[in-house]
Parts: sequence; structure tokens; C-alpha cells
Amino acid sequence: MKRRAIVHRLPMAGPDDASALVAEIEAGRIDPAGLRAVLGKTEGNGCVNDFTRGYAVQSLRLALAPYLSDDVLGALPMVMSGGTEGGLSPHWIVLEEGEGPDGPPALAFAASLTASLPPQAIGRMAQVQAVRDATRDAMRKAGITYAADVHFVQIKCPLLTSERIAAAGGDVATTDTLKSMGLSRGASALGVALALGEVAPEQLSDAVIGQDWSLWSARASCSAGVELTACEVVVMGQSADWAGDLRIGHAVMRDAIDAGSVADLLDLVEPGFRAQLTPPSQTQVLAVLAKTEASPDGMIRGARHVMLEDSDLSATRHARGFTGGLLAGLTGFTELFVSGGAEHQGPSGGGPCAMIYKTS
Amino acid sequence: MKRRAIVHRLPMAGPDDASALVAEIEAGRIDPAGLRAVLGKTEGNGCVNDFTRGYAVQSLRLALAPYLSDDVLGALPMVMSGGTEGGLSPHWIVLEEGEGPDGPPALAFAASLTASLPPQAIGRMAQVQAVRDATRDAMRKAGITYAADVHFVQIKCPLLTSERIAAAGGDVATTDTLKSMGLSRGASALGVALALGEVAPEQLSDAVIGQDWSLWSARASCSAGVELTACEVVVMGQSADWAGDLRIGHAVMRDAIDAGSVADLLDLVEPGFRAQLTPPSQTQVLAVLAKTEASPDGMIRGARHVMLEDSDLSATRHARGFTGGLLAGLTGFTELFVSGGAEHQGPSGGGPCAMIYKTS
Amino acid sequence: MKRRAIVHRLPMAGPDDASALVAEIEAGRIDPAGLRAVLGKTEGNGCVNDFTRGYAVQSLRLALAPYLSDDVLGALPMVMSGGTEGGLSPHWIVLEEGEGPDGPPALAFAASLTASLPPQAIGRMAQVQAVRDATRDAMRKAGITYAADVHFVQIKCPLLTSERIAAAGGDVATTDTLKSMGLSRGASALGVALALGEVAPEQLSDAVIGQDWSLWSARASCSAGVELTACEVVVMGQSADWAGDLRIGHAVMRDAIDAGSVADLLDLVEPGFRAQLTPPSQTQVLAVLAKTEASPDGMIRGARHVMLEDSDLSATRHARGFTGGLLAGLTGFTELFVSGGAEHQGPSGGGPCAMIYKTS
Amino acid sequence: MKRRAIVHRLPMAGPDDASALVAEIEAGRIDPAGLRAVLGKTEGNGCVNDFTRGYAVQSLRLALAPYLSDDVLGALPMVMSGGTEGGLSPHWIVLEEGEGPDGPPALAFAASLTASLPPQAIGRMAQVQAVRDATRDAMRKAGITYAADVHFVQIKCPLLTSERIAAAGGDVATTDTLKSMGLSRGASALGVALALGEVAPEQLSDAVIGQDWSLWSARASCSAGVELTACEVVVMGQSADWAGDLRIGHAVMRDAIDAGSVADLLDLVEPGFRAQLTPPSQTQVLAVLAKTEASPDGMIRGARHVMLEDSDLSATRHARGFTGGLLAGLTGFTELFVSGGAEHQGPSGGGPCAMIYKTS
Repeated sequence: MKRRAIVHRLPMAGPDDASALVAEIEAGRIDPAGLRAVLGKTEGNGCVNDFTRGYAVQSLRLALAPYLSDDVLGALPMVMSGGTEGGLSPHWIVLEEGEGPDGPPALAFAASLTASLPPQAIGRMAQVQAVRDATRDAMRKAGITYAADVHFVQIKCPLLTSERIAAAGGDVATTDTLKSMGLSRGASALGVALALGEVAPEQLSDAVIGQDWSLWSARASCSAGVELTACEVVVMGQSADWAGDLRIGHAVMRDAIDAGSVADLLDLVEPGFRAQLTPPSQTQVLAVLAKTEASPDGMIRGARHVMLEDSDLSATRHARGFTGGLLAGLTGFTELFVSGGAEHQGPSGGGPCAMIYKTS
Repeated sequence: MKRRAIVHRLPMAGPDDASALVAEIEAGRIDPAGLRAVLGKTEGNGCVNDFTRGYAVQSLRLALAPYLSDDVLGALPMVMSGGTEGGLSPHWIVLEEGEGPDGPPALAFAASLTASLPPQAIGRMAQVQAVRDATRDAMRKAGITYAADVHFVQIKCPLLTSERIAAAGGDVATTDTLKSMGLSRGASALGVALALGEVAPEQLSDAVIGQDWSLWSARASCSAGVELTACEVVVMGQSADWAGDLRIGHAVMRDAIDAGSVADLLDLVEPGFRAQLTPPSQTQVLAVLAKTEASPDGMIRGARHVMLEDSDLSATRHARGFTGGLLAGLTGFTELFVSGGAEHQGPSGGGPCAMIYKTS
Repeated sequence: MKRRAIVHRLPMAGPDDASALVAEIEAGRIDPAGLRAVLGKTEGNGCVNDFTRGYAVQSLRLALAPYLSDDVLGALPMVMSGGTEGGLSPHWIVLEEGEGPDGPPALAFAASLTASLPPQAIGRMAQVQAVRDATRDAMRKAGITYAADVHFVQIKCPLLTSERIAAAGGDVATTDTLKSMGLSRGASALGVALALGEVAPEQLSDAVIGQDWSLWSARASCSAGVELTACEVVVMGQSADWAGDLRIGHAVMRDAIDAGSVADLLDLVEPGFRAQLTPPSQTQVLAVLAKTEASPDGMIRGARHVMLEDSDLSATRHARGFTGGLLAGLTGFTELFVSGGAEHQGPSGGGPCAMIYKTS
Repeated sequence: MKRRAIVHRLPMAGPDDASALVAEIEAGRIDPAGLRAVLGKTEGNGCVNDFTRGYAVQSLRLALAPYLSDDVLGALPMVMSGGTEGGLSPHWIVLEEGEGPDGPPALAFAASLTASLPPQAIGRMAQVQAVRDATRDAMRKAGITYAADVHFVQIKCPLLTSERIAAAGGDVATTDTLKSMGLSRGASALGVALALGEVAPEQLSDAVIGQDWSLWSARASCSAGVELTACEVVVMGQSADWAGDLRIGHAVMRDAIDAGSVADLLDLVEPGFRAQLTPPSQTQVLAVLAKTEASPDGMIRGARHVMLEDSDLSATRHARGFTGGLLAGLTGFTELFVSGGAEHQGPSGGGPCAMIYKTS
């Protein structure tokens, strides 16, 4: 018998709605003991005062409390990412581990948690190193030996609030709370890049975080939220310790409209598909996880965008809706885990995109 | 010699920037006397208090004043549509008429203006009828005999403000200023549908406007703005009176993620293209004009969207960014004239999309 | 021994923070058994997708669960109002009932809950009648015999969402979710007005709700939220059944800048105070509860306001921040329960304002 | 004969509406040759992409073009400040200079313009020094000898956009466009403080700008906008070179709810007034000019505010609406020139407030 990954994508009627997950458990289609992580795409603004993330976590805990001990529940990673702009649809992605007969290497995952980070560490090398170690720890737990077998690392990391800034006596990477989200995401991404050998230790310092966009990970996806002070790291990849019919692949969007790279990724389920996956192929796709950002130079292929100048609507909200439209067009559905703010996650203006899929 | 259409797509650094148009005139690449309409995609919120539309019109008038008499300038249709969410790029689309040698039927266009509408008419049958007549008048001017040869009708129409509502003594279709934009767009669209035979007169009444979504035009694109009180109607199609290398086609998106219909349209320049037009094909596309909306039932292919529940961000802004992403993915560029609020413009949740292109 | 009201105003670090309440309980300063209602001013947008209200309720229930049986907890009214724009500060107002020695009539309160309202009832006479009955029931429970002794009726009422509209098959007062909040507040207010004899039954019908602003209650304060389907009614007034050092008074702001009426109310704690209560008087004020709205005619004392034209920022958010500034200037503190959307609550453009205070 | 100040406060129906000014000119109540500066409070978001400021300037130029030569018009300071949140009302404040009989010292004003600032200078000492010099130059022109006679210095200054940042090759004080508004306002304020002797030269350096809030001017009011690259400085004070019935005074709000300091200022027209100026006193007040900001420590008198955590609504919009409410309550009208972002303008969390008034 081998380890076996089972992935469920479930709808969410609001941040307080985990009823679809409970229904699956009650119907015997999910074994609570096998839960390894729950990701949620919630409908808040995805920025500093997005309380849908914390509300979803609290609601999820309440829903799972009848099935899991306090200790197990407390250790279960719950990675909420706010923002379903445009036609994106709030949903849960549930990662379950079971066991099954032998077979070729298959989807593998595991999680690790850093220690709580003091405000002084956020957006700085201390965070980079903590995430590097947690990434390696999660790989070990997932039975993934080689960095090349890691396809996505989903991280939930903290941000700075007015209170935390005051608590640190001002010794913080930034006093701008919204900006702290970007620095925290960036530091986390560089931690992944370090763990996976995508950047070398000597290239990194506090000064490059949020500055030198030539340094990036092709597989990091980081989301900051006010509701935690440590970094939760969920590594997804493939491993010979696991078998079953699930696989994962990833692509890197070179810029915000790089449909070609995404199409190459979707070819894994429908080679040579045209414009949009056909319905049968759509059912093979269990999860799409992508990062997006407004290109810092204010341009997309030579044409000006306004995302960074818009003081009514944050750039991450702009970017999620836009990339959501592109991905929905190609995949044919809207339950897409598109997360905003791709600092050091893919090249400047672009971002990584992963797909969990069933072999046909 | 026949009439000949020339279309220019030019960048805009802000709503006050018509410098690219002036540069083309100064370089002799645009003859001001040939100008028939100028469309502008500006970077405001596209809603009630979007002053970028009026600012762009005023700036455009100032820029063209040295080249055109007051009368000619006053009659030149200037159709501004606010909102470049996501990666969309503010730009001008300039419709110029020249003449040239004979050839097969080609792109044809002309404009017509309704009388000023009193507040009482907005969103009601009086507006429907005014737009119907203006559409027919513009067809005549463009030399388009058959409704089937019309591919896009771009309309700029008024909305209700607190002042206008008060002036009407409350006898208005709605007292909600944002909602009045939707009713005005809807009434305009039904006027086009009536002119083109897409709906029958007996199907229409005040009661169906903004209510019965089974009634729609496949070729109307309506944009409401605070800066005018009449409806400006620009008809685009094909006519044997015109020749040259430009053509127009249109598609109807069935829902917000109907990439297939758009791909069929783009086939006109690159048959069987994959995921995104190649760069040579991109240069053949002179303009993409599309309408989009949040589906009123709150769903896209069975999955919930949040656009109508988001009180921080209007549904039209959500929709433009999302559809902008889908179209940018397929076309490979971001100067796309995506306009929000597709009431009676295409099926519920979908919208029309037109392309002006060069024959290769 | 008589009934005795005790009121606590406590800070809230976020919608999930009921720690100040727990601390008071643990310190023996609040007896959980005496809790009669908890009001919360939370920091969401106060509109349709304000999840801070539901999150606060869920967090409050979790915090109180160790102290109260499920039944008691389930029946405890929790009235959350979203929106702390400007310098307003999120806070709890806890209404506790104890007992004490005899004395003159004093602050009295009690709550009542309507049955769950179907979507069809919201914003219509069915809601008006349900709230009328609940108001009378709460008066009875509070021992308030005469309508004149009622000074404030705080109501939490439901709104329409896309799902609920669909469930009603379209038989709803409006299909605009944001607008449904206004209609629900308005219907609730007219229910109070009916119960208190401020309007006569024959003046009311579906048609006047949200239309005839000459009908209003001077003591209703209604807040709509997505997290409930019934109306929670908390009546506050004075009664000879109660004694102690707490009193309540109310004023009606005639328009958005009617500082004079508020000053007259504040005179109850510091007669003839100038511009701002002095610090000792500030400590006498336990709670300020006010309603506010953008005047529907777009004017304040003859000058135009832009609240109804602003498509980036809802009018209720504008109004709360503005009235919050006026009240904070007069009182000298920012924990003010200012709630937006004063339809039928006070005259058009104005709103009621109540103060709970200690006799000096 | 002496110089004599005439001040007009005029309504604005939109950023394109200078009709009230034209009407005054046509009626002979304003002599265009006497215009010295025009201030405008426009209804945009007051942030980076607020085009109402530029639109108002362009509209004002068009309106005045028939009356003034290009040179005179080009040199006339037009200081637009965006943002009329809450019940604030868009309006013009027109500063005109005439002459009249001798009398005691009276309101005096004059303007000066710095050279165009390169992006590298914005938010740095080069801007501080340019503003210091322009302030002194404007004092000279206004006939104000002593710093103590200066009561308000209204400045319009540039900001950084993505284009300008790129043009500077990244050598800028910040790459965050919204943040650049704050740094530009702060540097301008310190320039005024330097000119008026409120801070000493040795206290200033690039490092203190936007950091050391103990350094501030009690009379600077700075507004940043995308539509200019130099700083326009309008000094207002009192001078024996001027006579007439107009005076100016100023106060400093110590925090966001310091109604007492404002009341002391309003005493100049109605000593000992209560809560709100009476209507006759209101007519004596020709202009109220104030600055406001969200206190950087996230607190107002010990209670938390949420302005800095709100990613949907910028802190300057919050602050303007809130302070607008406080000032409207005290003055009794809403045409108040409240400008957001008070960096180095008054103490942290507070701001200066000036009043131009008629002697009774």
C-alpha cells in the first residue's frame, strides 16, 4: 500500500459556509482523519482588512470540531486567500491523504508551520530563513526528495498592523500596512526559492526583498493575512511514495497575458485543446492555483495599465479579476484559486500557475 | 472612387492626453476632415461619477480645435467609455473616412445623434424609439441597406443625476443614479434591436426594460455617461459603397467565460489559432469592442460569483476587468474597448464582441 | 428590589475580539446571566458584503459559550452594525440587567425577535407588521407602558441576496441587493413608528416604503445584515419598574449638520456645555446611538453633496463618517454607535440620536 | 488708496462647472483683472487618479479665457484639492485684489510658483527649499513682512507616477505613487515651516521627511496632484498694505476631534457661540480651510481607528469626511475646504484650520 492523495473542490456560499465539506464527511466521501490541509478562496478584498479569511478559518474549525480532536484540528493547515474579483467563485480545496495500491509517482503533499514571527522579522531575512526551513520540512514529510519534484508551495504568512508596528517600536520593514503584505509575501517566496535552489543564499539580504525582481521562485504562492503570526507552508509535488490517479504540473506566466504558458500546462489534460478545455477535460482538473500581480513598471507588452495608479481599488484586486478572466476563458470554469501579489513569485508582472489533475 | 474606412488605435496617457492623435494629424497620417467618430476608453470608474469621460471629450475638443471649425467639431461624435480595470489600457479608436479604388464590400460607418432626452425619457420607450430612429439614420448615412450588414452599434447615452431627477419632479424610471445607467443602456440596446429587427415592436414596453432579459441585440454596445443628455449612435458594418482592406465581424459571448465564441471571431484573422493570436495576427486586429456584465442570477456555469454582492466595487468594474483578462489572453494585447453593463446587449450574463481587422 | 440596568461600553480590536467582554465577566463586573443584549459596531463596510457583522456574532457566541447554556445564548440578541468610517472606533455596547434598591424611573430595556421573514416580506408591509408586534412585545417585557417612554428601538433586520431573490422566484420588493438594505431598514422603522403611534395604520402600504419620507419614527434605528433572516428588536426607554443611576434621552437631527439638536441632548449631562463635553461629562456618557443618511435630494442646507453620485463609496459609508465627525466633536470621543441608512428613521436627511448616561 | 482683498465662495456643479464664476464676472461683481488665485474643492477621490483636479483647472481656464490674456491666465494660480467626502460640498474660493480706502491691517495674499521639480526632488530637501523660497517670495508680493502675520499657506504640489518614477531611473523618495503624495505634501509643509521660522534649517534632512512628526507648520496646507510638476504657493495673512473688511485667523487642531480649538477660532465672528454658529455669523465666514489626517499611531484619544487598515477606502478620504462633519457641525455649512493628508501640517493626527471672515 502506498500513500494516496485525494483532492476535493467544494463550493462556499460565504466565508461562514463549510457545509459542503461537512456533507462530504457525512456522506463518507471524506475521511476527516485524512485531512492534511484546507485551502479556501474567500470573497473579501484580499487586503489588510479582509476579515473573510479569519471568518472562514473560524467557521471551518467549528465545522470540523465534531470530527477531530482539538490537537489535530489546531495543527491542520488552513490557508485562506481573499479575493474573488470578476467572475471568480469562492471555494474550498481540500487535501486528503489516504492509501491505495502501488503505481507510478503521483501527487504528494504535506505541511509545516514556522514559529510565530515577531513584527521585526516580517518582510526580512528572518522570515526568508524560517520559510526555507519549513519548506524543507514539508518536503520531507511529503516524501519528496528532489526540489525538481516540487510543483507548488502555498504559503499563508502574516502582515503588519498598526498595533504590531507599535509593538515593535517602529523597528519594522515598513510602516505601511498594505505594503507589509507585499514584503511578507516576497520574503516567503524567497524562502521557497532558497529551499528549492532557485536562488543562492549569497544573493539574498533584507535589501533585495521587494526590490530586486530578478530573484524569484517559479513555484511559490504566498498570501498574507491579518489572522496569523506564523507562516503556514503547504508543499505540493510528486513522489514515488505516493500513487493513485492524481498528478500536478506547473507553468510560469511570463506576463499578465501569457495565455500560451497556461495553455501548455492545460495540454496535460487535453493536448492541443483550442481556446477552452472541453467539458470532459474540465472535469479532470481538480484545482488551478495561480499568482498574479500588476507589473511594477506600469506596462503590459508596451501598453500602459492603471492598476498602480488607482487609489479606489487596490492593484491586487485588479490583478486577480483580470487573471481570473484569462484562466476562466482557458479552463471553462471559475472556481480558480487566483491569489494576488506575486512579489518574487514568478517574473515581474507574471506568476506561477499550478494544476492538480486526474489522469484520464 | 469609393468611400474607404481608416481606423487608428492610439494610446492615451490620461484622459487629458490626445497628443497621439495630434501627432498623427501633424504627420499627415490622419486627415482631420475625414474624422467621423472618436471612441475613447478612459480610466475612470465607468460609473456615475466618472469624470474621465467628460475630461477626455473636453481635451479632445481642445486638441482638434486648430484643425476643425466649431460646427464640424461640435457635430463629431465622441464616445467615451470609462473603465480600464485589470490590465486594460486606455486608448483612442479613431474612425476616419477617406476614399480609394473599388473593391469588395468593406468596413463602413456613420453616426447620428438623437435630440436631447428629458429625464422622464431615460430608461423608457421614448429613449428606445429615439435610438431606433438614430440607428436607421446612421445606417442610411453609412450606406448600409440591410440590418444583417450591421455588426456593431456603439452608443453613448445619458443617465439620471440627483439634479435631473429633481428637475423631473420625480417622474423618472428610477431614483437610483447608478441604476439609471443600466436602464439607459438597456433602453438604447432595445432601440438598436428594434432597428435591426432583433425584437418586434409589440414585444416592447416600459415594463420590459431592465426586466425581460430574453430581449436583446447581438450588436448593440451602450455606455452611459453624465456628460451628455442625448444619445450618440455610431453604426459599424459592411457596405458595397465602401472598399479598402478593412472588415468587421462580431460574435456573441453566451456567458462571461465564453472563450469559444470569441475564438471563432478571431479565426477571421488567424484560422485555427491556439490560445492566443500570434504577433503577426495581432497587428491585423485594429479594434476589439466588447460588452460585459455580471450575470443577474449571480451564477456563471453553476458557480456563484460575488459581483452583485460587492458593495465596495461596482459590478461593472468587476466585469470589465474579468472579460478584459479573457480577451487579452486570446488576442495578446490590452488595448481592448471593453465596456461594462450589457443590459439587453447579448444574452443575460454575456455580451456582443466585435472586431475591426485588416485582410491579410 | 427593582430591576436595574447596567451598561458597558467595551473596545473591540477586530470583529473576532470579544476579549474585553470576557475580561469583565472574569473580573466579576458583568454577570453573564444578566445579559439582555449585545450591540456591536464593527469595522466592515456596513453594506451587503460586510462579513464583520456575522464574524462578530460568531466570535461573541464562542466567547460566551462557557458562561451560558445553548438555549440562553441562542436567544440573546446580538445586534451588529457595520461601519466605523472616519475616526469612529469599533466597540461593544453590553446591556445587562441586575437588580437594586428602589428609586425614580430609570433606563429599561428588553428584546424581542420576529419570526424568520421570507424574501417576499422584506421591505414590505409584512415586515412592518412583524416589527410592530415585536416592538410592542419588547415594551411589555421591559415594563414600559407608554410609547412616550420609549427613547430608542434598535433593530437588526435581514436583506435580500442573489440567492434569496432567486428563491423567491423574483417576487421581491427589489432585485438590487444594496437597495434591499434600505427597504428593509425602512420597513422596520415604519413598524416602530406604528407601534409608537408616530404614524397611523392607514398611512402605510407597500407603496410608501422607501418613497414617502414624510413618514418616520423619531426613535427607530435599523441596521440590515446578511447574517439573519428575522428582525431582532431591542427597545430602550425608561420605566418605573427599573431604578438605578442610568437614564436615556433622545434627539432628532433635522438634517446632517444639526449640531444644535445633539447639543440639546448632551445638555442632559453638562447643561450649557461649549463645543465639546468636558472630560468629566464624557465619562457620564455610556453610549451614543445615532442614525444618519445622505439626504435623498442631494442637498444639505442648499449646498450640493456628492454622496449619492459616488460609485466608489456607498452613501452610507460617506454618511457615517461625516456624522461620526460631528458627534465626536461634540462628545469628545469616538466610540459612537453611528449607523448608516436612516430611511423613515427621522426626517429625510436627518436621523435620531439617543444617549444613555449616568446621573451625576 | 490701499490694496483690498475680496473673497468669493461659489458653488460648483461638477469639475467642469465654472459658471458661477463667469456669472459673477458678467454681473460685474468680480473684476477678472483682479484675480490673484482660485482654489477649488473638487469631488474626486483626492488621491493619485483624481482627475477632477485637472479637469477643473482645464475648465476654469476655458471659462476665463475670454477675460484674460494667455500670459495672465497662465500665471494665475489654480489650486485644486480633491475630495468632498461626507456632506462636504464642491466649491470655488476666489481671491481677488482691488483697492479701497485706508483702514487697519486686513487680509492680504499673493502667490508664487517654484520651478518645475524633477521626480528626484519630490519628497526631498530640494522640494523643501524650493517651497521655502516661494513662500518668502509670496510674502514679499503680499506685503507681509513678519512671519507672525502669515495665517495660511496653501500649496499645490506634484506627485510621482509610474511614468515619472521610470523617468528618474528609480532615484525617487518612494516607488509607491500614493505614498509619494504624502511625501510631497510633507516636504512642502516643511518648506513653509522653514520660511516661517517654525523649524530650524539644521533640523531638516531627507530622513526626517515623512518620519519625524514633531516637526510641523501650524499654517501650511498642502495638496498633491498629478496635474502639475511645480509647487504653487498661495500665502494668506494680514498686512498694513491692505485694508477693507476682511480678516483671517487660524487655529491648530491638536487631534482629529479637537472641536475646542476650532471653536476658539470661530469666536472671532461670534464670541461664545454654542455648538453651531448662528445663521448671521455663518454669513460672515467667507472661507474655512483645514487639513486633516488619520493619526499615524492608529489611535484617537486612546481609542482605535481603522482608517489606516482599510484597503477599500484611503485614509485621506476617511479623514476628510470625518473632519468635514466636525467642522460642518460647528460652522453650520458644508462648503468647507477640507484637505486630506496633513503630514508635517499641524501635530500628528491634527492639522491647521484657517478662517477668512468679514468684520461684523
